[in-house]
Amino acid sequence: PRVFRIAVLPGDGIGPEVVAEATKVLQVVNSASPDFELKLEEHQFGGAAIDAVGEPLPPSTLKACQEADAILMGSIGGPKWGVDAKVRPEPGLLTLRKTLGLYANIRPANFASEGLLEYTPLRPEVARGFDTVVVRELIGGLYFGTRKEASAEPDVGTAWDNMIYSEAEIQRITRVAAQIALSTNPPMEIHSIDKANVLACSRLWRKTVTETLTKEYPQIIFDHQLVDSTAMVMVSNPRKLNGVILTENLFGDILSDQSSVIPGSLGLLPSASLAGAPSKVSSPDFKPTHGLYEPIHGSAPDIAGKGIANPIGTILSAAMLLRYSLGLDKPASAIEAAVRKVLDLPATGGYGLRTADLGGKVGTTELGYKVVEAL
Amino acid sequence: PRVFRIAVLPGDGIGPEVVAEATKVLQVVNSASPDFELKLEEHQFGGAAIDAVGEPLPPSTLKACQEADAILMGSIGGPKWGVDAKVRPEPGLLTLRKTLGLYANIRPANFASEGLLEYTPLRPEVARGFDTVVVRELIGGLYFGTRKEASAEPDVGTAWDNMIYSEAEIQRITRVAAQIALSTNPPMEIHSIDKANVLACSRLWRKTVTETLTKEYPQIIFDHQLVDSTAMVMVSNPRKLNGVILTENLFGDILSDQSSVIPGSLGLLPSASLAGAPSKVSSPDFKPTHGLYEPIHGSAPDIAGKGIANPIGTILSAAMLLRYSLGLDKPASAIEAAVRKVLDLPATGGYGLRTADLGGKVGTTELGYKVVEAL
Ligand SMILES: CC(C)[C@H](C(=O)O)[C@@H](O)C(=O)O
Ligand SMILES: CC(C)[C@H](C(=O)O)[C@@H](O)C(=O)O
Repeated sequence: PRVFRIAVLPGDGIGPEVVAEATKVLQVVNSASPDFELKLEEHQFGGAAIDAVGEPLPPSTLKACQEADAILMGSIGGPKWGVDAKVRPEPGLLTLRKTLGLYANIRPANFASEGLLEYTPLRPEVARGFDTVVVRELIGGLYFGTRKEASAEPDVGTAWDNMIYSEAEIQRITRVAAQIALSTNPPMEIHSIDKANVLACSRLWRKTVTETLTKEYPQIIFDHQLVDSTAMVMVSNPRKLNGVILTENLFGDILSDQSSVIPGSLGLLPSASLAGAPSKVSSPDFKPTHGLYEPIHGSAPDIAGKGIANPIGTILSAAMLLRYSLGLDKPASAIEAAVRKVLDLPATGGYGLRTADLGGKVGTTELGYKVVEAL
Repeated sequence: PRVFRIAVLPGDGIGPEVVAEATKVLQVVNSASPDFELKLEEHQFGGAAIDAVGEPLPPSTLKACQEADAILMGSIGGPKWGVDAKVRPEPGLLTLRKTLGLYANIRPANFASEGLLEYTPLRPEVARGFDTVVVRELIGGLYFGTRKEASAEPDVGTAWDNMIYSEAEIQRITRVAAQIALSTNPPMEIHSIDKANVLACSRLWRKTVTETLTKEYPQIIFDHQLVDSTAMVMVSNPRKLNGVILTENLFGDILSDQSSVIPGSLGLLPSASLAGAPSKVSSPDFKPTHGLYEPIHGSAPDIAGKGIANPIGTILSAAMLLRYSLGLDKPASAIEAAVRKVLDLPATGGYGLRTADLGGKVGTTELGYKVVEAL
C-alpha cells in the first residue's frame, strides 16, 4: 500500500484534545483502507515546545514537517506565553509557514447544516445561505516585511513594520482563488479585498488580480471591494460576499476570523495552508508540495482540559488533508458526510449531539466517537 | 454675540443632500440663540472639486478649513473618481486630516433608541445594549508612512507601504480615549486593539497604552485584544466590547465600519476628527484646535440624487460640532433629543418617520424638517 506520513502538532490549550479526535478518525480511515497506510507521528510545537525545549519550533519538528506528506495541527498559544514573554509560540508558526512556503490559506465558512442556523449571532434570515471561502495570502505583507522594534536604534520610541508585495506573490494566490472558484459549477464569484484608495500594495493587488483573472480565467466573475466596507457588509448582508474572498495576509486574518463566527460556531470550521503550484487545486489529484491543516479556532485556554471543546473543526481539517495533500477524495467525503450526519441528529432527551459551543452537553471524546460510528 | 465660522464641505454623492439638512438644523439653532452667531460657508471638496478645479482639496478650501472654528463634511468619492483615476478624492481628505493634525477620530456606535433594535442585522438579544465609541488614531500608521508604487524604480513590480508609530503619537490618542472614558460615571472600560503577536508597531502600542493609562488614569479599567479576535467578538458578542475601542488608523478604519452596522443603520451615526490637546475632551469647555465632523456613511452613489438618504448621521455630526468645537453643549443636546424623539415616533398608516435604510418611506428633506420641528 502507499504510505503517507502525517506530522501531527497537537500544540497548546484545547489543541491536544481536538487533535486526538481527528487522529482517531484518521486511524479508522486507515484501518478501513487496504490500499494506503497513514503513518501519524506527533511532534512538539508552540507553547508546549517552549516549555519542553525552550523554542516553539524545534529543528526536529521543522524537519518532520518538511518531510511529511501533510501536517495536522491543533492550536498554539495561551496566557502563559503572552506578548511580553521572551519566547512566544507565534513566531514558530510564522517560521513554519514561511519555511514551507505555505502561501495559500483556505478557510471555508458556511453552514455545514441548516440545523445550525439557530446558532448564528446574526438574524437567521440575514445569515441563511452564507457560503464563502476566504483565500488568504499567508507569507507576505506586513507579517513578513522588515520591521523595527521601538527599543531598537535609531529612533528609540518609534516602531515600524513594512507591508510588501510583489506581482508574482499576488499572481500565485490569485490562481489558487481561481481554481477554488472553478471547483463549483457554475464557478463561484471572486471578491478581491484591498484598501486601494490608500495603499500602494493594494493598488498593485487590484491591478494584478484584474490582469490575472481577465487573462487566465475569463470565465470567472470578480469584483474589488475595500476592506472597511467588506467588514461592514459581512455583518449587514453577508450573502453579498458569497463565493471566494481573495485577500492579503492581514486583511485575511481579520476577515476570516470575522466570517468564521457567522455560521454559528467557530468550532466547526477547518482550514488548509498550502504550498506549491496551484494549477490543480480543484481536481482530485491535486497535490500541494506541503499542506498544513488546522481548525480555525485558537487554543481556548479557558476551556482547555475540560473535555468540552468541539473537535469538528479539526476532524474536517483532517478531511481537507486527505483531499488536498494525499489526493484521497473518497475518505475525505466520507468524513464530511459523517460529520453532517452527526450534527443533524436531533437532540434527544435534552442531550444533543453537540458540544457546549453549540448549546449541547456532549464532550469532545464522545463527539469524536459519534463521528467514527457514523463513518 | 460670539461669531463662529463653520466651513461646510458637502462633497459628493449624497453628501450635499444630507449636509443640506444639517445646515438647516444649524440655521434654526442659530436664529434661536441671540448670544452666538453661526457663519456657514460652503467650499468645494472631493470629487466635486476635482470636476470643478482639477484637485480634491483646492488651496482656498484648505485655507477656509484652517481658519474656521469647525468643519462640517458630507462624504466624498464615487465611481467617477475610482482607484484608476488620475486624480482621486481620497488624498484630499487625507491631506486635510494631516495638515490640520486631526489625529483623533471619534465614532460612537450605539442604539440611539430601543425602537431601532429591529433594524440590526444581529439577533436582537445579541445586539441589545451594544454601546461603544471607537477612538481611531487618524494621521499615523500605514496611511501616512512612506510607500512605493509598483511602477516606481527600483524593483518594478513590487510595492510597499510602511506602518510607523511613535510613542508620542500613541500617548496622545490614548489620552483622548481616556478622557472619553471618563465622560461617563463610572468611567467606560477601554479596549485597546492591536496585533501585538506580529507587529512591532502593535507591541509599542500595547506598551504605551498600558503605561499611559496606568500612570495617568489609574481609575480606568482597560484590556488589550487582538484585531482578528475583536472582529470576531464584535459579531458573536458585541456587548463584550462596550466602552471605548482604542486603536490605530487601519484597524480603526475596519472596526469602526464593522461596528457601525450593528445598531441597524449606518445612516444614523456621526463622527468627529479632532486636533489639539486632549486634556478636556469630556468637559463642556473643551475646544479642539480643529475639528471635522461627518457622518460615518460614504457617498452612496447608488442612491445619490434620489432624496432618500438618511440625514441623521450628519445632523448628529453637527451636534458633535457644536459640543466639541464650539463648546455649545445645550443646543447639541437639544438636537440629539430632537433626533431621538423623531426616531421613536411610531409609524402611522404605513408611513414611518424613517428613511429607506430603516425600512421607512420618508425622504431626506422631510426628515430634516421633522427634526427641526422637534427642536
Ligand atoms: C497566531 C497568529 C500569528 C495567526 C495569524 O495572525 O496569522 C493566527 O491569528 C491565524 O490567523 O492563524
Ligand atoms: C476615504 C478613506 C481614505 C477613509 C479612510 O480609510 O480613512 C474612509 O474609509 C474613512 O474611514 O474615513
